[in-house]
Amino acid sequence: MFGVKTLRTVGTAVCRRGASVLWKPTRTQSRTQSAAAGQRVDIGGIYPPIATPFTQKEDVDYQKLDENLQKYAKIPFKGLVVQGSNGEYPYLTEEERVEVVRRVRLALPTDKLVMAGSGCECKALSTKATVVMTERMAGAGADLVLVVTPCFYKGMMDSRALVHHFTQVADSSPVPVVLYSVPANTGLDLPVDAVVRLAQHPNILGLKDSGGDITRIALIVHKTKPQDFQVLAGSAGFLMAAYSVGCVGGVCALANVLGREVCELEQLCVSGRWEEASALQQRLIEPNTAVTRKFGVPALKQAMEWFGYHGGTCRSPLQPLSEAESQQLRLDFSTNGWL
Amino acid sequence: MFGVKTLRTVGTAVCRRGASVLWKPTRTQSRTQSAAAGQRVDIGGIYPPIATPFTQKEDVDYQKLDENLQKYAKIPFKGLVVQGSNGEYPYLTEEERVEVVRRVRLALPTDKLVMAGSGCECKALSTKATVVMTERMAGAGADLVLVVTPCFYKGMMDSRALVHHFTQVADSSPVPVVLYSVPANTGLDLPVDAVVRLAQHPNILGLKDSGGDITRIALIVHKTKPQDFQVLAGSAGFLMAAYSVGCVGGVCALANVLGREVCELEQLCVSGRWEEASALQQRLIEPNTAVTRKFGVPALKQAMEWFGYHGGTCRSPLQPLSEAESQQLRLDFSTNGWL
Amino acid sequence: MFGVKTLRTVGTAVCRRGASVLWKPTRTQSRTQSAAAGQRVDIGGIYPPIATPFTQKEDVDYQKLDENLQKYAKIPFKGLVVQGSNGEYPYLTEEERVEVVRRVRLALPTDKLVMAGSGCECKALSTKATVVMTERMAGAGADLVLVVTPCFYKGMMDSRALVHHFTQVADSSPVPVVLYSVPANTGLDLPVDAVVRLAQHPNILGLKDSGGDITRIALIVHKTKPQDFQVLAGSAGFLMAAYSVGCVGGVCALANVLGREVCELEQLCVSGRWEEASALQQRLIEPNTAVTRKFGVPALKQAMEWFGYHGGTCRSPLQPLSEAESQQLRLDFSTNGWL
Amino acid sequence: MFGVKTLRTVGTAVCRRGASVLWKPTRTQSRTQSAAAGQRVDIGGIYPPIATPFTQKEDVDYQKLDENLQKYAKIPFKGLVVQGSNGEYPYLTEEERVEVVRRVRLALPTDKLVMAGSGCECKALSTKATVVMTERMAGAGADLVLVVTPCFYKGMMDSRALVHHFTQVADSSPVPVVLYSVPANTGLDLPVDAVVRLAQHPNILGLKDSGGDITRIALIVHKTKPQDFQVLAGSAGFLMAAYSVGCVGGVCALANVLGREVCELEQLCVSGRWEEASALQQRLIEPNTAVTRKFGVPALKQAMEWFGYHGGTCRSPLQPLSEAESQQLRLDFSTNGWL
Repeated sequence: MFGVKTLRTVGTAVCRRGASVLWKPTRTQSRTQSAAAGQRVDIGGIYPPIATPFTQKEDVDYQKLDENLQKYAKIPFKGLVVQGSNGEYPYLTEEERVEVVRRVRLALPTDKLVMAGSGCECKALSTKATVVMTERMAGAGADLVLVVTPCFYKGMMDSRALVHHFTQVADSSPVPVVLYSVPANTGLDLPVDAVVRLAQHPNILGLKDSGGDITRIALIVHKTKPQDFQVLAGSAGFLMAAYSVGCVGGVCALANVLGREVCELEQLCVSGRWEEASALQQRLIEPNTAVTRKFGVPALKQAMEWFGYHGGTCRSPLQPLSEAESQQLRLDFSTNGWL
Repeated sequence: MFGVKTLRTVGTAVCRRGASVLWKPTRTQSRTQSAAAGQRVDIGGIYPPIATPFTQKEDVDYQKLDENLQKYAKIPFKGLVVQGSNGEYPYLTEEERVEVVRRVRLALPTDKLVMAGSGCECKALSTKATVVMTERMAGAGADLVLVVTPCFYKGMMDSRALVHHFTQVADSSPVPVVLYSVPANTGLDLPVDAVVRLAQHPNILGLKDSGGDITRIALIVHKTKPQDFQVLAGSAGFLMAAYSVGCVGGVCALANVLGREVCELEQLCVSGRWEEASALQQRLIEPNTAVTRKFGVPALKQAMEWFGYHGGTCRSPLQPLSEAESQQLRLDFSTNGWL
Repeated sequence: MFGVKTLRTVGTAVCRRGASVLWKPTRTQSRTQSAAAGQRVDIGGIYPPIATPFTQKEDVDYQKLDENLQKYAKIPFKGLVVQGSNGEYPYLTEEERVEVVRRVRLALPTDKLVMAGSGCECKALSTKATVVMTERMAGAGADLVLVVTPCFYKGMMDSRALVHHFTQVADSSPVPVVLYSVPANTGLDLPVDAVVRLAQHPNILGLKDSGGDITRIALIVHKTKPQDFQVLAGSAGFLMAAYSVGCVGGVCALANVLGREVCELEQLCVSGRWEEASALQQRLIEPNTAVTRKFGVPALKQAMEWFGYHGGTCRSPLQPLSEAESQQLRLDFSTNGWL
Repeated sequence: MFGVKTLRTVGTAVCRRGASVLWKPTRTQSRTQSAAAGQRVDIGGIYPPIATPFTQKEDVDYQKLDENLQKYAKIPFKGLVVQGSNGEYPYLTEEERVEVVRRVRLALPTDKLVMAGSGCECKALSTKATVVMTERMAGAGADLVLVVTPCFYKGMMDSRALVHHFTQVADSSPVPVVLYSVPANTGLDLPVDAVVRLAQHPNILGLKDSGGDITRIALIVHKTKPQDFQVLAGSAGFLMAAYSVGCVGGVCALANVLGREVCELEQLCVSGRWEEASALQQRLIEPNTAVTRKFGVPALKQAMEWFGYHGGTCRSPLQPLSEAESQQLRLDFSTNGWL
């Protein structure tokens, strides 16, 4: 039993880049009914994959989390990704992970989507455990789940195994599934042929691709067009290029810090103002690299402090930035005019 | 002594995406005069990196080469790249390499640029040898030289060594230099900081980037804007994305086969018709991958035969396609509507 | 508070390649006392990293596990590794993981060491969670814990972070710690300088290195000689080479299947019969590769069936071998004379 | 027409680790005669891949080369490798390459083998060009040629293409061929199945493997045993491990500097004194890494100066060491007791 993607025959003008949510299951509504109505979730837009603030003792600081959420609620995000890598989810317990999702859903306006990571990314849990976690996330209020490629036994994770895994998860998930390919963390790309097959599953409606290979991304958009499959860029670094080849949005760590600016880039792309988009895109690359590949979550949290959010420390084994790293981080923002 | 990039103070509206050549040295004109006039070579546009036809005995078949050139002359290319990897230059002798350039220059209309590979790519010749080859290429009529990163002692080829190498070459080259970064063949990327420094050299006016990391490409465009540095995509696979972030053209193996189509994609991008561009771009990805990364030069030459050009066999150790590969190649064209 | 490595000043002839355990804490003995006595755990020898049998319903089959253990008890192993990657631990719950360790300790003679994986390998738990799991493993009877490099935020896991992580774990572990570097799964090597520093910790007595870079392994042996640090090869594929450069044993997946043969190779190396060792080593490489890198845990379990052990199926997303893979697996054993 | 490996039926006791050359073609002798006699070249032993000294003006300094050769002649090397990567051959002209080989052959006693690189390594010349260069090297006096994997079109260089290439070269070579696999420079390993097939060619008698994957090396020794194929380690870093699994010698950059010590390691291995060998091996790793992977040819030449040889500068684009690098290099020798 699962939530359902749009029926192609329905005439409602589904704008891939539109801002409105055409269909979002309520807690009480029968999903089958929704399906019958042929509605779908339009996931197009920008999502920050939010960070998890901790107290001095490294406990989750729900108070600070709430304060961040109040600020994010005012930015034209399509929604939030909770328990992505930037949320340090690998270092949270299962209970913490579920509780954070619950808090986020409560704090956010209902027109913002909550996309919860349930795939346990490099945690490499079994298919069964992912199924269970998916149900818990939906139970805590997630509108969508983001399910990463299992990666532990890399060599064995061929298309056959991956299609089997995601199909099992999607078959049983109460909410729609977004696939997640992030080779920098997992060491493997979800193969294009697997994506094409999975796109045909009625409960899988999109892909977050963090690899940044724009040729591959364009090919996926091309080959899943019959299914109206929705592809999200996994980083602000190639957001504009992704829009140019047909992506519908992005999950961008940088949006935790420069949320309005990333949304502005989205709008410029969606409205076809490519020259302005290009100028803005270029200024976002260095800060984006700094809070992701270059210095990671500790840098993201450091920059959040500079821009009025609660960032704070990470859980060990993640270490705080050195003084030199912190200065370089600042430079990556200031030379582009953001500080 | 060298050819010169534009003087920034000159008021001529240099359109990065424009089609007209503002300055191109003629054979007889003093390059110093040109420099004094503050003109520059606009390299924006599409270039096929041409293949080298051989006879049955594996000698260069100049007759067939000429026939291909007659056809290419009618396509709105900005110019041709001669002695790039698709020309099998590593398997040509120095004399053959120079002779091919001479023939191409003679056969082409003067308003088409001839960009000749002189960098000896993975041939890893010394700086001195590259200097000499550059002079020979210019002597044979090349309007520009394309100089690849030396790569043999990869571990030693840091920014310091690379800046030194390209500076030596550019200092002595009679024609403007285009840098060339092609990690798939060389195993190394020309580092961004090296590109930024080299962009300041008056005789280095652009970069061909075949790596396809669109974030990196956008950053290079951004950081070399003050020098009006011109970046070319090294493949048709990410040509549209490259235009979206500020590139001015592309060197595309696929243009040997689908030359008009690649030029059409260029025009759609340059004129801001992004929706149409995106649709066309997507149909070009699989054929492009097939004649490059997937099956290489033997596939390019095979496809050329199908589209009315002389392709033929490669020099050993390159082997012809197997029957199964040939069928897959055909499929990659036909499923996208090109055959 | 921690168990303690040998005091260097004690005159007991500690044979790196000896078979006897000089010191092993009993459940009731105060570890501090042991420490005072200057004894140490000699870990030299062969360990199979055991597989976890499942029932048809994918529950842990403790009955079959016991039957395997009865057989392993008769082979001259130094001990067993429990909850290594071959145990599919990423797909077990925490409770299952602890229970399996408890069962193994009960089933084995007391002179066999139980080395339990507590590091959560690519599960990338926080330092704190690893500390807790380590204590649970010791509580369940583990004589040693095998702690893998945390790997989720690969880019951030430099020597500083890794030394901090392992030091925290070793400081609090009730049993000695063995470091574990397995780049094929984690995507990162524990750097040599980090190993050298960690070797000085009194509760870290060795390293399991599965990378197979014999130059690196020899260098680690060389640079940790003052600490009498014990290095184990992580695979039967390079076991003999590892002995030749000073390793003291091996954790070998193949020993689940060809346990006596791997122990024979050990004896040949330890007793200096290199010619015979070389002949045996060479015949073990293809079967070893087949049950590890080439076909993984499903192949290991398949081969176990052929050799009289309970293997059975894996947990999803791991898939059973195809018929063709199974035949190739058989060939890799039979062409080397093992079937 | 080619030189010939041993006839298997001949009863002469061919010791793989013996020091004597059973068969070496003289300049005047008919190779067919030699073949008829069933003799073979035993290549077991140590070879420095010699550096090429330059004058201040970067010309080859034959005087200094000669002086180095006088010293090398007194060390119990099996022979010398000329025009390997450490000879900066990619930066030499063809004429220089041949002339250096000629000089070496003249300067060396006749019982030392001259193994000349003719494969053009990453120069990626065509099969035909390699055939020609091989003949020139033989003409200049090379006893053997070392032919590297062609690597330019990496993606196309599968076993089929590589077997074809080496077979063509070996078919026509006047002297026996040694295969050369050096993934660090070429980006590709000669596949095991290709080696096994090529080992059956009567004019291919060995392999230099510089990859250092000891499992692979042992497997190759195992699978080519019927052909009495001779495998050489490509580095002093894993020389002992290589001997332990059945290699017969090594081509070691470090032997340019510590020639007697590397030969001593060989003797310890050959005579089965493994404990002493292990101690010596370990002290050679850091200096070896320093003059190869870490700092490359400039470091090798620097260290040569310290040990009484002519090293000097490299050809551009190779740059001299920085002061800090030079100090680190010295440390890598001194902390191991060599300076």
